[in-house]
Amino acid sequence: MGKRIREYGAEIGRLEPGSGNSITDVAGVTVGHVTLSEGRMQTGVTAILPHQGDMFQEKLLAAAHVINGFGKTMGLMQINELGTLETPIILTNTLSIGTAADALIEYMLERNPEIGRTTGTVNPVVCECNDMFLNDVRARYVTKDHVLQALRQASDTCAEGAVGAGTGMLCYSLKGGIGTSSRLMVMEHGTYMMGALVLTNFGSLGDLRINGKAVGQELCEAMEQTRQERDQGSVIIILATDLPVSERQLNRIVKRSVTGLARTGSIVATGSGEVVIGFSTATRIPHRKTSACLSLSVIHEEDIDIAFRAAGEVVEEAVLNAMAAAEPVTGRDGERRPALGELLERFRVQLV
Amino acid sequence: MGKRIREYGAEIGRLEPGSGNSITDVAGVTVGHVTLSEGRMQTGVTAILPHQGDMFQEKLLAAAHVINGFGKTMGLMQINELGTLETPIILTNTLSIGTAADALIEYMLERNPEIGRTTGTVNPVVCECNDMFLNDVRARYVTKDHVLQALRQASDTCAEGAVGAGTGMLCYSLKGGIGTSSRLMVMEHGTYMMGALVLTNFGSLGDLRINGKAVGQELCEAMEQTRQERDQGSVIIILATDLPVSERQLNRIVKRSVTGLARTGSIVATGSGEVVIGFSTATRIPHRKTSACLSLSVIHEEDIDIAFRAAGEVVEEAVLNAMAAAEPVTGRDGERRPALGELLERFRVQLV
Amino acid sequence: MGKRIREYGAEIGRLEPGSGNSITDVAGVTVGHVTLSEGRMQTGVTAILPHQGDMFQEKLLAAAHVINGFGKTMGLMQINELGTLETPIILTNTLSIGTAADALIEYMLERNPEIGRTTGTVNPVVCECNDMFLNDVRARYVTKDHVLQALRQASDTCAEGAVGAGTGMLCYSLKGGIGTSSRLMVMEHGTYMMGALVLTNFGSLGDLRINGKAVGQELCEAMEQTRQERDQGSVIIILATDLPVSERQLNRIVKRSVTGLARTGSIVATGSGEVVIGFSTATRIPHRKTSACLSLSVIHEEDIDIAFRAAGEVVEEAVLNAMAAAEPVTGRDGERRPALGELLERFRVQLV
Amino acid sequence: MGKRIREYGAEIGRLEPGSGNSITDVAGVTVGHVTLSEGRMQTGVTAILPHQGDMFQEKLLAAAHVINGFGKTMGLMQINELGTLETPIILTNTLSIGTAADALIEYMLERNPEIGRTTGTVNPVVCECNDMFLNDVRARYVTKDHVLQALRQASDTCAEGAVGAGTGMLCYSLKGGIGTSSRLMVMEHGTYMMGALVLTNFGSLGDLRINGKAVGQELCEAMEQTRQERDQGSVIIILATDLPVSERQLNRIVKRSVTGLARTGSIVATGSGEVVIGFSTATRIPHRKTSACLSLSVIHEEDIDIAFRAAGEVVEEAVLNAMAAAEPVTGRDGERRPALGELLERFRVQLV
Repeated sequence: MGKRIREYGAEIGRLEPGSGNSITDVAGVTVGHVTLSEGRMQTGVTAILPHQGDMFQEKLLAAAHVINGFGKTMGLMQINELGTLETPIILTNTLSIGTAADALIEYMLERNPEIGRTTGTVNPVVCECNDMFLNDVRARYVTKDHVLQALRQASDTCAEGAVGAGTGMLCYSLKGGIGTSSRLMVMEHGTYMMGALVLTNFGSLGDLRINGKAVGQELCEAMEQTRQERDQGSVIIILATDLPVSERQLNRIVKRSVTGLARTGSIVATGSGEVVIGFSTATRIPHRKTSACLSLSVIHEEDIDIAFRAAGEVVEEAVLNAMAAAEPVTGRDGERRPALGELLERFRVQLV
Repeated sequence: MGKRIREYGAEIGRLEPGSGNSITDVAGVTVGHVTLSEGRMQTGVTAILPHQGDMFQEKLLAAAHVINGFGKTMGLMQINELGTLETPIILTNTLSIGTAADALIEYMLERNPEIGRTTGTVNPVVCECNDMFLNDVRARYVTKDHVLQALRQASDTCAEGAVGAGTGMLCYSLKGGIGTSSRLMVMEHGTYMMGALVLTNFGSLGDLRINGKAVGQELCEAMEQTRQERDQGSVIIILATDLPVSERQLNRIVKRSVTGLARTGSIVATGSGEVVIGFSTATRIPHRKTSACLSLSVIHEEDIDIAFRAAGEVVEEAVLNAMAAAEPVTGRDGERRPALGELLERFRVQLV
Repeated sequence: MGKRIREYGAEIGRLEPGSGNSITDVAGVTVGHVTLSEGRMQTGVTAILPHQGDMFQEKLLAAAHVINGFGKTMGLMQINELGTLETPIILTNTLSIGTAADALIEYMLERNPEIGRTTGTVNPVVCECNDMFLNDVRARYVTKDHVLQALRQASDTCAEGAVGAGTGMLCYSLKGGIGTSSRLMVMEHGTYMMGALVLTNFGSLGDLRINGKAVGQELCEAMEQTRQERDQGSVIIILATDLPVSERQLNRIVKRSVTGLARTGSIVATGSGEVVIGFSTATRIPHRKTSACLSLSVIHEEDIDIAFRAAGEVVEEAVLNAMAAAEPVTGRDGERRPALGELLERFRVQLV
Repeated sequence: MGKRIREYGAEIGRLEPGSGNSITDVAGVTVGHVTLSEGRMQTGVTAILPHQGDMFQEKLLAAAHVINGFGKTMGLMQINELGTLETPIILTNTLSIGTAADALIEYMLERNPEIGRTTGTVNPVVCECNDMFLNDVRARYVTKDHVLQALRQASDTCAEGAVGAGTGMLCYSLKGGIGTSSRLMVMEHGTYMMGALVLTNFGSLGDLRINGKAVGQELCEAMEQTRQERDQGSVIIILATDLPVSERQLNRIVKRSVTGLARTGSIVATGSGEVVIGFSTATRIPHRKTSACLSLSVIHEEDIDIAFRAAGEVVEEAVLNAMAAAEPVTGRDGERRPALGELLERFRVQLV
């Protein structure tokens, strides 16, 4: 596995990362990858399990935000309406969302015999980016089994780079993929965690900035690259936290993700589907109606700025980690995509 | 004062009204009117006080919804962002919103010396309808004193019809104005109240339905009225409840107001600014940051349907009450507008 | 096939229907159903083709609106962002959306070899209701072939009632399903058409109103039915028009659908996913970038009220047509659901 | 007057500025300031006139976006609903919005005798930031005359820094105020202009970045400043363009403003009301209904990225221009606020 951006000397933001600098620093969150990498097949599946219980019976408060809606992510409507997440989250390539949804439905039906019998249906959440530049996306290599396998394999270690759904993704014209990061949020009433996992597939090299430095431009000049590739693709952002917040507060927090993206250089291009889903593990919402009211603990609004700062920082660092970790790959038509680490070293770019 | 729609035999909906069938059935809510009715001056101010304490120091959870945005209501942006209401609500005519905002700011500054000194500013909420058909709206008769007077005069009795901000309003081409209604919501963990106050200034007579019956068409035929007046104007809906809900739940509830409007016959015409603001008195949110988290009590989502039903019913009945209570008036150019009660009696329309 | 609501004497609204009183009165629109009705299998697929050309190459202006988001409809995010529809629309049961999406993707890939090669991906639009009360929804009977068949079978005749995706649906506790209706919109610059197709699966009998009359209550009393069934399920509304409008205007129009729903008695219950998708056939938006600007023809905003009225009327009538056309069915556990027509006749309910 | 950020060597972004690098590079746009600076009075008014004709009779396509809604801006609801702007835009301090709205209504009434007589009312657009740190905001120094004067004084030169509404504003804990910038957008079918005017009153010094460089941190260290000021306040962004776009496209463009803010270091803090209003001068929408449809020219969606890039760049540069131009001021309690230029020079910070 590749390096992380801090190993190149770039310290993003002002808050301290959690012990693993990973979304799995949020207690209970696990991530599983299935990587399909062979010849024209450069794709995969990533599963995020927000907690280790039954997500349908014990939902989590959640919020979704669309930065740019040129994408096919499923399940946002119900998250917005009900403020809860009731399944794991699956990431995969754009043309496999049907298959992934079908697999996730199956997974939930197996675990919950009452769905569709004595209670209603379930809201599968599936996000996607288009990996057609490296992967033969039309072949739709992802099967239901791959999705179920990613769910089964989830652990509290999150691999980065060209793994899982990130296998065939590009970021700032270089190899992209999965990245993660975390921040500690120290407040009067406790210390909380904010974690991000990103699936990066956006940006044009000339725009890339690392900790503010215009590294992309420097690399373009070093490589004597004149023509800019069009910025398309997408980015999916999953934010996890154990901060006690209302759905409205969580929605405000997830909206701040765009500050992190912008600081890596993104212009949020038209063709880039950019979606954020956030959840809080602080409160579990029971599926079954209770005879009494529910009690929610939420922070005072004046305390929320540290979560806004954390959201921006974890997204910025997770994007850079995705690029730092990625190894170069050769795609469906034999085109090789360099990786960030390789270029930083070849052209001796200083990040400190 | 005029009658109420139930006195004509129309029993709207399936839930029981509160004791006063009024928004003031929600404990703590008071309403004050200043009526300016003389010649070309047919306008006024209505103030709703959500509780009797200091709204700035103890905010209420609130939600706003725009059914149709052809209007000038102020203060919705912050309600949506922060989920709280921190001032009384002022209703007046469209061209007096500046004056009303200025007066409400003054009212809040007087009561809160720290605003603009040691703490931030205040979000005045002012709603409006255009009473130009009966009132010389360009004359802007409303002064800051009128607004302050409406605030001072607020009581737990809510007059209906051509009073306060409703003085110069039309509804379904007849005299409109202020209407109110309430419903009891019996749940396992308690009995709660839903109240509405509406400022009605919308609709075209041919569309009017009372408890489903096409009364408007019947009246048009009886009066041999062939040309339909254009449907313009607006309607402002204030929903008050003591139900413990989150801002998201409250937002879902206020959205149901449109079902009540539609059942009175509304097509939600383009020129009709239709805005709903709802608040819950169940929880007070302190302005000052606390060292601990806040604790919110909220209903289980499965319990919410009765609130949806109540929201539709109170709006439907409040609109009809506004019309039933209104007396005919003679407007700025001498044109007389009939009142619903008068027509129902003249043409012997049966509502049962 | 069953009757239509007009055959019972109920004339909904004030505008004239098109020649077929059907969504297919909008030139170019076709509808195909695949009905799966046998024992515990009571489900199906409905496909709506907005025009007969290549939807991906020649997109239509479109708008989506979520009345209540407890649902799993796919594809809305991109419609909202880009204002265009680029595939046919598929309706099916909730747990088959993955399969339907997969099939629709396949359908689009076959017709467009450049998708995922030289151009980006495609946004499949799949809507659903939960037919678990009559259908064994967990069995997921719908296959990709059923979806492709529905697309192939589309014609300019739209069957109603328990057909296609409507096979297993309930409406106001009676048999529901597919309904359609249309209205002529006469304007200075031409006569236009508004059509609706609805998939109805919502409501509780006691709430049903037909042309304002409280028929549901009357039937409950006649059947000595005391316990009300819970209102859950969903309704999907597809609006088609040839009116030249902008995406913003179309969005305003589709939002008015709720007035039609409300007039049939709906309280828009929490568990009822209610989604509207509208498209205009007036302008085709080319997928390929042109060197010049596009030219859009749009109505003046003052002309839009007739479209608001039409949207409410077609939805109200389409819902009632779905119920009028439906035959009684026996569901997965042998429970028989009566149909509206049957009850109107048995209890001699007058609608005129 | 102060310098501009380019004079310090910071070249923001990749596109070329217009001839004045100002919002007034968009043909027809003028800006007027009234500055009230004396002792405890440190406030003012800024007026933006989108074109020089009658805005009510010839409206412009417009879009609004709320980045963070902790603010009191008026008029957004109708912009969002109708997609048009029909008045000049007024900027002032938070507690003067009532007065400013009243003045703008008066201005419009004078020019349009039919408002409130034979046609409906007018939607005044007033934006605000809270200048309480330097100004005695409770005193509400702004009068209607000041607003009318700002409107009268508008010219095609836009002063920057502590002028007009910017007089009492802070930005990144230093003196803020009004800033502006522009970019050329070269497309196949023509060259277009994007201009921004910002009213800056947000941010905490430690976060400030100039062209990516962490200048704020550097200055904090140089000044041995340990305690960070809380990030509150607001920023108002006005985007003007002559690009032919639909309201939906314009909405997408204005949303990209946040990328520019983020690159200056903003975390979009909770207390910072951040609002964007954009308009296009390409098409004028007549107030009076026409007998035919309107014809709109709009760019193909694939062409929009350059406008996204321009929106980010003009906002980033306009914020920095506001700071570069500002002179240090002494506020209501005698506290002096340094200006950016002063500090850059004192501590010899290199921006190239």
